[in-house]
Amino acid sequence: MNLKQRKLVTIVAEAALEPRLIRDITALGAKGYTISPAHGAGPRNQRNGDLEGGNIRIEIVVNNDVMTKVLELLETNYFPHYACSCWVSAVEVLRDERY
Amino acid sequence: MNLKQRKLVTIVAEAALEPRLIRDITALGAKGYTISPAHGAGPRNQRNGDLEGGNIRIEIVVNNDVMTKVLELLETNYFPHYACSCWVSAVEVLRDERY
Amino acid sequence: MNLKQRKLVTIVAEAALEPRLIRDITALGAKGYTISPAHGAGPRNQRNGDLEGGNIRIEIVVNNDVMTKVLELLETNYFPHYACSCWVSAVEVLRDERY
Repeated sequence: MNLKQRKLVTIVAEAALEPRLIRDITALGAKGYTISPAHGAGPRNQRNGDLEGGNIRIEIVVNNDVMTKVLELLETNYFPHYACSCWVSAVEVLRDERY
Repeated sequence: MNLKQRKLVTIVAEAALEPRLIRDITALGAKGYTISPAHGAGPRNQRNGDLEGGNIRIEIVVNNDVMTKVLELLETNYFPHYACSCWVSAVEVLRDERY
Repeated sequence: MNLKQRKLVTIVAEAALEPRLIRDITALGAKGYTISPAHGAGPRNQRNGDLEGGNIRIEIVVNNDVMTKVLELLETNYFPHYACSCWVSAVEVLRDERY
């Protein structure tokens, strides 16, 4: 079984940001994404996503290069302006040409 | 890019436990959480969450100390009484003061 | 705290495949599963799951042996025929007899 290393980037943000996040992430090289509905709270104790359509949880599986670009994007254009959470983990995939 | 190590703790439980789990986890030091709707089955082949409001999938990103406290809490107060699943993985974050 | 190593296998597929995937995965040895609703797009830019009931995101926590069998199943019976995404990560669990 020939597994290849990738990074899973999980982003939680308000649902209204979905079209913009998808456009930005795709432009940086992510070849796909998975979105689940979510709600929650962040460190300032905001209960985000309980109003106005909830939160979304976006997952992308990407190489290190795209991961770095996505994190730089979040740091520059999202974290200063929006309640937004992000974490990265190591994953393995079978069909590396897809990620 | 300055990434910091944290632990992602994922807990799956019946939705009715959400307020209690959030209160307990927050009291132990988790600064935020993300909740998604879920359904599923466990090793005793119960199909949990198909009745009574479904299951929830709670994610928290925490340091090792908070992770240990949360796992001890689950082991003592939840696992013996409720259908509940939990796994931990290593993740990286940009803004470590938030987690 | 005595944590044991397992693998988390995440599969994203169209919701119509849920009964078949659950039957196949359970037959290969997975003792439980968690399913969340999802939507998204893959590398051929299909927006899967926006019609016909959406996508599902299935998570199973399994040992290496079951992981290998599940990946072989996907490679043989699902990837050639369906839009389907899958990634694997290392996780730790407390009660290894359940996974």
